[in-house]
Amino acid sequence: MSEAIEKATAAKAASVLLAQATAAERTSAILKAAQAVDEGRSAIIEANVRDMERARGNGMPAPMLDRLMLDDERIDGIVSAMREVASQPDPIGEVVGGRTLASGIRLTQVRVPLGVIGMIYEARPNVTADAICLTLRTGNAVVLRGGSAALESCAAIVEACRRGISEAGLPADCASLLVSEGHEQTIELMHAEGLVDLIIPRGGHSLIRTCVEQSSVPVIQTGEGNCHVYVHAAADLDMALLIIENAKVQRPGVCNAIETVLVDEAVASEFLPRLVAACSDWGVFLHGDHKTTSIAENLGLDEGREYAPATEADWATEYDALELAVRVVPGLDEAISHINTYGTQHSECIVTSDVAAADAFLARVDAAAVYVNASTRFTDGGMFGLGAEIGISTQKLHARGPMGALALTTTKCLLRGEGQVRA
Amino acid sequence: MSEAIEKATAAKAASVLLAQATAAERTSAILKAAQAVDEGRSAIIEANVRDMERARGNGMPAPMLDRLMLDDERIDGIVSAMREVASQPDPIGEVVGGRTLASGIRLTQVRVPLGVIGMIYEARPNVTADAICLTLRTGNAVVLRGGSAALESCAAIVEACRRGISEAGLPADCASLLVSEGHEQTIELMHAEGLVDLIIPRGGHSLIRTCVEQSSVPVIQTGEGNCHVYVHAAADLDMALLIIENAKVQRPGVCNAIETVLVDEAVASEFLPRLVAACSDWGVFLHGDHKTTSIAENLGLDEGREYAPATEADWATEYDALELAVRVVPGLDEAISHINTYGTQHSECIVTSDVAAADAFLARVDAAAVYVNASTRFTDGGMFGLGAEIGISTQKLHARGPMGALALTTTKCLLRGEGQVRA
Repeated sequence: MSEAIEKATAAKAASVLLAQATAAERTSAILKAAQAVDEGRSAIIEANVRDMERARGNGMPAPMLDRLMLDDERIDGIVSAMREVASQPDPIGEVVGGRTLASGIRLTQVRVPLGVIGMIYEARPNVTADAICLTLRTGNAVVLRGGSAALESCAAIVEACRRGISEAGLPADCASLLVSEGHEQTIELMHAEGLVDLIIPRGGHSLIRTCVEQSSVPVIQTGEGNCHVYVHAAADLDMALLIIENAKVQRPGVCNAIETVLVDEAVASEFLPRLVAACSDWGVFLHGDHKTTSIAENLGLDEGREYAPATEADWATEYDALELAVRVVPGLDEAISHINTYGTQHSECIVTSDVAAADAFLARVDAAAVYVNASTRFTDGGMFGLGAEIGISTQKLHARGPMGALALTTTKCLLRGEGQVRA
Repeated sequence: MSEAIEKATAAKAASVLLAQATAAERTSAILKAAQAVDEGRSAIIEANVRDMERARGNGMPAPMLDRLMLDDERIDGIVSAMREVASQPDPIGEVVGGRTLASGIRLTQVRVPLGVIGMIYEARPNVTADAICLTLRTGNAVVLRGGSAALESCAAIVEACRRGISEAGLPADCASLLVSEGHEQTIELMHAEGLVDLIIPRGGHSLIRTCVEQSSVPVIQTGEGNCHVYVHAAADLDMALLIIENAKVQRPGVCNAIETVLVDEAVASEFLPRLVAACSDWGVFLHGDHKTTSIAENLGLDEGREYAPATEADWATEYDALELAVRVVPGLDEAISHINTYGTQHSECIVTSDVAAADAFLARVDAAAVYVNASTRFTDGGMFGLGAEIGISTQKLHARGPMGALALTTTKCLLRGEGQVRA
């Protein structure tokens, strides 16, 4: 039996017991896991030092090294995030509906766990603990597959969590990590129908594409964010500039950051020079259409270092960096059409003081979150009041937008009769 | 451009207009489509006569011929089902939640259509009209792929519906049918990401497996039903026999019919002879374990014509016919384990007067609908009060159990601010 099937089988058996546990038992498992991470931090940090050394040797770029790195402060963050999930309400067993059928059968629809979640992610050790807590909170077992660069760090965190889960009297196999090298086990996990109920990829475009194309277990796509701000003809231009700064500069590597600004022709001659100058101040590289690059040239910006002409590919690119595409559009219809063509249905924003334009944008843009006059950076489980977040779904099925605990549950209909048969 | 991509592209464009239409306009489109089917019945029946002739020539078995056949009475049924969907509430635009975020941004979560549904089904012309109405009701466009044996009938129904939709002022491309021969277009449809939002297969095991394994567009599995009745030690045996008769005999070809009866050892000697004799009366062929076949032999049943020894394969078989597998189990744990191993998570039943056994069965059996003392035949959108049903989901994501209109919708978060940015 392969590692993936062995661990998925063990996870399925564990998930049955976990689903039957009480909310208090699941809370205890999360708290004990948090405590085990807290107390086992030296082993986790040592493992991370080895991962970091290997990653540096392999020439991992600085932003990725930063994501990989664990120190005391980050472990504190992980532990406190785990404790926060422990304090969230337990969704399992909630009665979400029900009725007495015409025949007198009493129907109760209750919330139940999905079963076993396969979580495939990149070299970010903190995702390991997040996923374990959220799956425990929702009564699901999890089989994790982290990026190989973070293998030792993830293994150390999983080991600590398994210890905590056991101490709480639940099966350690509620959480496990695939450790074999290569992609084979990941592919096996994506085909473990009957054992694994859901695959959640968390990472870049190619990881997500691989899961969507290859998995026969259902997948929820998360976190691809080619987001836009459209500066409408009736925009408050000061507000637009503040929103663009926040949505692009504050944290350029996250999925709710923007990648393209669309500027209405009506305000382009007034707004574009301000935007171009601001981008130069912010250190944001511009991929501009003709009008934008002309202005950049006129303002004396350095072509190649500060700006370049945008190509078709730019409209579809998630830079995840201090780079921004800029395009002038004739009006609202073209802005919506551009967004619906190139966007990833994540978060989209219009800046306008015109109520009809705002309403049309809200109605016609096809995305999980559509904003009027606010930064796209608010798309987040915490900000939306969902508690801890397992990811941001950019698909329409099952969960859309920030996914909290409920996204990891399903329902079951319980029917109680007294011998009814169908006529 | 292939037929599938061409029709999916047209459907996507139509879906944008359909989603923006009012509920009254969608209702009108359904009613006009119903009227067009009603008035166009002679063309539809003529097309069906040609399908029937071809099918008879190809040696199609009688039950499938019956499903294919359309006459005046069946057209009446289709038309009245369409009108019933028109009278169902329109789910689009419903506010399902919302709050003012800490930053003052006002969040409203509204129900929206999925977009474009790809519906792949077998040679059942009535599914064509069902699917068109339910997708219109929920603001979705649909691309249909019916079984080739029903091609002319389906095409005639779709043509009438498109006429009706146009008359109501909505784009005819809200509904279209793939007519090319072979599987290529079906496969293209299953990979039309960005155009098609959901694939719903409706049919037998192999159709569903093909979609699950091949589709990169999300799939909802429907209608596989390997359902069980477990006759517990504390069962009312008269009730058990009535429930088994209803769940097996009333309509053996449907997915909520049962395929296996599990009999508790404690009541086997009393119940099995009654069950075996009853099956002989009902004309139900038995696939029995050793105890069951011994009794059949003792009762003088005809081996090969009335019963046969069950093999491992029987436990996993959906007969869809007057055949029943029977197995004696030592107790509740083994019954649950058998069901969770071989079942398709559709509908499962325990017959018992023992409340602890009932509660354990309800909690631990992993299925969309779990029954105590009632026939599994009640698992149905109409019976559950959901109105018309697009199928019965046997997966856990997005929709579980009978799927009404809500299963064809998703939500979108609208956020209205006054320039808020994230700190």
